[in-house]
Amino acid sequence: MKRTELPTTMRASVLVRAGELTVETRPVPVPLPDQVIVRVNAVGICGSDVHYFHEGRIGDFVVEEPLVLGHESGSDRRGRRRRRRLPRGERVSIEPQRPCRVCEFCRSGRYNLCPRIEFYATPPIDGAFAEYVAISNDFAYTVPDAVSDDAAALMEPLSVAIAAIQKAGVRPGSRVLITGAGPIGIVTAQTARAFGAAAIVISDPMAERREVALRFGATEAVDPASGPLGTGYDAFIDASGSPVAVKQGISALKPGGVAVLVGMGADEIALPVSTIQNRELVVTGIFRYANTWPTAIQLVASGAVDLDALVTGSFGIREVREALDSASHPSTLKSIVRPDREYARES
Amino acid sequence: MKRTELPTTMRASVLVRAGELTVETRPVPVPLPDQVIVRVNAVGICGSDVHYFHEGRIGDFVVEEPLVLGHESGSDRRGRRRRRRLPRGERVSIEPQRPCRVCEFCRSGRYNLCPRIEFYATPPIDGAFAEYVAISNDFAYTVPDAVSDDAAALMEPLSVAIAAIQKAGVRPGSRVLITGAGPIGIVTAQTARAFGAAAIVISDPMAERREVALRFGATEAVDPASGPLGTGYDAFIDASGSPVAVKQGISALKPGGVAVLVGMGADEIALPVSTIQNRELVVTGIFRYANTWPTAIQLVASGAVDLDALVTGSFGIREVREALDSASHPSTLKSIVRPDREYARES
Amino acid sequence: MKRTELPTTMRASVLVRAGELTVETRPVPVPLPDQVIVRVNAVGICGSDVHYFHEGRIGDFVVEEPLVLGHESGSDRRGRRRRRRLPRGERVSIEPQRPCRVCEFCRSGRYNLCPRIEFYATPPIDGAFAEYVAISNDFAYTVPDAVSDDAAALMEPLSVAIAAIQKAGVRPGSRVLITGAGPIGIVTAQTARAFGAAAIVISDPMAERREVALRFGATEAVDPASGPLGTGYDAFIDASGSPVAVKQGISALKPGGVAVLVGMGADEIALPVSTIQNRELVVTGIFRYANTWPTAIQLVASGAVDLDALVTGSFGIREVREALDSASHPSTLKSIVRPDREYARES
Amino acid sequence: MKRTELPTTMRASVLVRAGELTVETRPVPVPLPDQVIVRVNAVGICGSDVHYFHEGRIGDFVVEEPLVLGHESGSDRRGRRRRRRLPRGERVSIEPQRPCRVCEFCRSGRYNLCPRIEFYATPPIDGAFAEYVAISNDFAYTVPDAVSDDAAALMEPLSVAIAAIQKAGVRPGSRVLITGAGPIGIVTAQTARAFGAAAIVISDPMAERREVALRFGATEAVDPASGPLGTGYDAFIDASGSPVAVKQGISALKPGGVAVLVGMGADEIALPVSTIQNRELVVTGIFRYANTWPTAIQLVASGAVDLDALVTGSFGIREVREALDSASHPSTLKSIVRPDREYARES
Repeated sequence: MKRTELPTTMRASVLVRAGELTVETRPVPVPLPDQVIVRVNAVGICGSDVHYFHEGRIGDFVVEEPLVLGHESGSDRRGRRRRRRLPRGERVSIEPQRPCRVCEFCRSGRYNLCPRIEFYATPPIDGAFAEYVAISNDFAYTVPDAVSDDAAALMEPLSVAIAAIQKAGVRPGSRVLITGAGPIGIVTAQTARAFGAAAIVISDPMAERREVALRFGATEAVDPASGPLGTGYDAFIDASGSPVAVKQGISALKPGGVAVLVGMGADEIALPVSTIQNRELVVTGIFRYANTWPTAIQLVASGAVDLDALVTGSFGIREVREALDSASHPSTLKSIVRPDREYARES
Repeated sequence: MKRTELPTTMRASVLVRAGELTVETRPVPVPLPDQVIVRVNAVGICGSDVHYFHEGRIGDFVVEEPLVLGHESGSDRRGRRRRRRLPRGERVSIEPQRPCRVCEFCRSGRYNLCPRIEFYATPPIDGAFAEYVAISNDFAYTVPDAVSDDAAALMEPLSVAIAAIQKAGVRPGSRVLITGAGPIGIVTAQTARAFGAAAIVISDPMAERREVALRFGATEAVDPASGPLGTGYDAFIDASGSPVAVKQGISALKPGGVAVLVGMGADEIALPVSTIQNRELVVTGIFRYANTWPTAIQLVASGAVDLDALVTGSFGIREVREALDSASHPSTLKSIVRPDREYARES
Repeated sequence: MKRTELPTTMRASVLVRAGELTVETRPVPVPLPDQVIVRVNAVGICGSDVHYFHEGRIGDFVVEEPLVLGHESGSDRRGRRRRRRLPRGERVSIEPQRPCRVCEFCRSGRYNLCPRIEFYATPPIDGAFAEYVAISNDFAYTVPDAVSDDAAALMEPLSVAIAAIQKAGVRPGSRVLITGAGPIGIVTAQTARAFGAAAIVISDPMAERREVALRFGATEAVDPASGPLGTGYDAFIDASGSPVAVKQGISALKPGGVAVLVGMGADEIALPVSTIQNRELVVTGIFRYANTWPTAIQLVASGAVDLDALVTGSFGIREVREALDSASHPSTLKSIVRPDREYARES
Repeated sequence: MKRTELPTTMRASVLVRAGELTVETRPVPVPLPDQVIVRVNAVGICGSDVHYFHEGRIGDFVVEEPLVLGHESGSDRRGRRRRRRLPRGERVSIEPQRPCRVCEFCRSGRYNLCPRIEFYATPPIDGAFAEYVAISNDFAYTVPDAVSDDAAALMEPLSVAIAAIQKAGVRPGSRVLITGAGPIGIVTAQTARAFGAAAIVISDPMAERREVALRFGATEAVDPASGPLGTGYDAFIDASGSPVAVKQGISALKPGGVAVLVGMGADEIALPVSTIQNRELVVTGIFRYANTWPTAIQLVASGAVDLDALVTGSFGIREVREALDSASHPSTLKSIVRPDREYARES
């Protein structure tokens, strides 16, 4: 297929309302002047996709119109109706957001805080469980041959980990505590190792996940039920969203330590304020990421981070529900949807 | 009196146990090799002095032996038994702490986090409600003539404010929210102004204090009972210790904003974690200060901060109890104890 | 005149070739979708304007086509052919650049380093010695009534000073050395004071300029011919471009000090490398500015910086040559061109 | 030998005057209260040792009295005359400096800039070509068994590299240029890799050294004679001291890049100031290091940096001259003096 002969319609998996998915035929998006069209062939399942599917909302974001989910998207070609800038067949990883570029946050380099930002699969913006998506040209990053399609998709959770590790100030020699050994915890452990951390302790109540963590960069995996999480950490990253984990993790930091809250959960958590004061701890969070893709691609291309090994299952566009369900199985790390196939078994 | 003829005994106000103060005759301290002896003539009353007096403890710090209180100390001379380095009559302001100088925190410039630090009026280290104290030579800072004795004493709370304002990243143009218009809140407002803040909003439930705040740098003073505290602040400094104020203040920050918790109170506070994450807020605290005295002296000497105007009463060494009691009067900002006098009325 | 009735033509002062200026009638610019049209009523004369006028080039930037000079532009209204976003009569200050907003520099908050940036009065981009100019909506900043038209224009050199002072890390208590008491040096001294500098020493060989400096924030003004520039500075800002001044200034820094080179001159300067190493000095420069306008406007609106007092003469659009010539008079600080008048004497 | 039976005399290699070395019997140093005595068994040869040997001075530091050279010292035991704090046989690496701990630089974490610092083998302070040395307790760092004696000694040049890499802001993904593939250049390349640099280009005119560099972390080694050094680097570290290399390296930086000058040479170098300005480059240097040892030990213990592979020859205390001479052989990377042996051949 030549680029200039993009089809006019495509398949998309649509969340009609909470719990109800359907595959629809929709028009291929018409790119804005700064956008390209990307043919999607791998999309990771994120916890937020699962949450929208079941609840129809996350906090203030409510699915009021049918919505295409999926925002962890790697892709293998792109074209453009009006003109073309990239060689055909360029393989890209998508940073699934669209900042305004004119507000004070955009102009000062923190575009993820832009109040007008649009983000894939966040109502009312459609996501990537579809054959084609539109994205700003500079938010589609060319990946080298050494990076697989799945890895291109998983640059998104890796970017979350990079944002967290950078905020936490992890550097060679750091001692890092991570609570939660789900996909984000695991990628964060790998990223901590790539940033030179000397000790990477991960906690998770599930033995299965602790074992996985030890294969992906953790130097120690502990069961939070069997005692405290240690002390003297330079950095603590919560990837669990558990109030208990957050409190324990903050208390395990050394003076001057930094806690980065990544996991989402309760709106409020009772935090140990006097410990924060007495040790001059820094407690902060991340909201997505900004300017992380070049680092993410480099970490994967150099082999410092292995994203392919995280993939535990793949699904076609008619199996999005199965993909979402799979995310809660204990043996699942990352499920991938391949929108260019109806069913994963297709060759 | 010549310096080489330091007396061998002195008067000191001693907290025998919670609620019981007595004036004793004690030996003048013998300086360690790196120390000088300072004759104290002005000591501010801090909330922690009041707390120790009434409760006999602050958190894990318990008054088990008789203790001299007072740590906000300016002084007008110093001598030294063994040798002398400074011209006689040098007037100094005391930074009332003694770090170990060899741990990783001391060596990296954050000596206030030193685990072996000794601090005036924190058990078992005696404080400054006494005629003479010993202090490391480099923690006794010469003040110029333009700085009064009282101002020299109040460099200590000013240092708290400087530490907070610096941590909060206040700079020309910043919008700053301060909760609590007690002495620390007022000095923080003055310091924010000296650092160039464009808007300094202070909240306090007491109308009297709000009025004072407006005289000392606040651009606006609000009653927290009459509504929210506004929005879009770059920096929030809590000087109240009130959980409600802390929560409201954090929620009033703009994305990327910084909250510095100075006021002490409950060990735990339920904080709006999802707001911290979505706006990438930084929540931190300060534990005393490090390397602030030169800035403090400069701010006062240049007139950017006025400490003398904070003094609302003065007391002799036999009136420490009255001084401590005065701190809770609504019209009191700062009470000063003058250990070189028995009663304030003496000339 | 109503905004929707913008004229179709305007007067502009055009540099035909080095040394030759003419007033032409030109079409009013057609704004791009993100731009507004601004009616210019005050433009400061910058040294670079004078340099282009005489030499026809600055470094690699060569005037090959007729060029409108002027980039320090405040203005008193703006309109828009297609639609209007701002209330009529809004008075604005113009940040005279247009970054691409998609490169890595733009996206990370350093848009002044954008390789595709367009800047007023830098070939081939026309500047502001014209009745109307086009500018991106977010680069036209509303100024409050307290800010005059001239001050609105001079936000541009103030932004240079802010960029320098921020890079130099000036904060309350800093000791700052500035070499060169021309307009940039003077504004830098004012800005240093607004940022809380304790000592601001300015050097200039001309006694007249040293006197002016003392009126605008310098705490001391020295003649470089009469000896060294002192020692122990935290920050050094060169606003002279003189190799001798740069060398002397760097050598006057204390360990850990920062030198910011603002003045332009020789491509190469022999720098005291062993001093830079032994004292771990930082030597850097600024290239225009990014994200400085809000601070600039706040500094002027609050009275911390006085730009009006810098204006020593004003000229109409037919007097641009006289305005350029005036810049070299010792008594000139800032000459202003008023493009809405033919001659300054008009009322 | 038991620790409490330290001998009273020891052998030391003494530089009597430029070019003249002798082995003398000297008293074992008497430790100050904060010091321990270390038995030295490996000392690296540094270029500064060679320089002192030949010239009798480096800049303002002149050998006026007989001086013991050597400051890269690892050691295998330590004792203490007065009391003992460490288990016997503890193996340590020595940070060979003694800051005053009370000046503003010491107190703010930059003790290497202390004006009263004492440093091994810098007149008049004796160095480590001796059987025993005294060092502050907290400047003798225990090394784990996995770290060899030679590696313990070479923590010193590794600390130089860490200081440079940290100042240069190298992080995962950085593109780094290093000029000079001598020992410091090689260790810097290894350190850059350990900090995650994506590209590490090293330049050296000697083919032999370029080959070595490729074995130690460089991703590319170039001959400066055969053309420019490339462009677009985030960081440039000069480890050559060559003015040409410094100029070329600075010019190869991308906007916002950082140059760290480590190599010593001419007092002045003509630097491309307009490039520094237009690209907002940062040019700085390092003076030794502060707080690097924990990171250095961790990098070696984890295998991220291999110091043992740098050792190309070893010498006894009667062969210091041969050791110094060996440093200029093209095939030498690091020569080690073993003060506990008369000749290296001894077992």
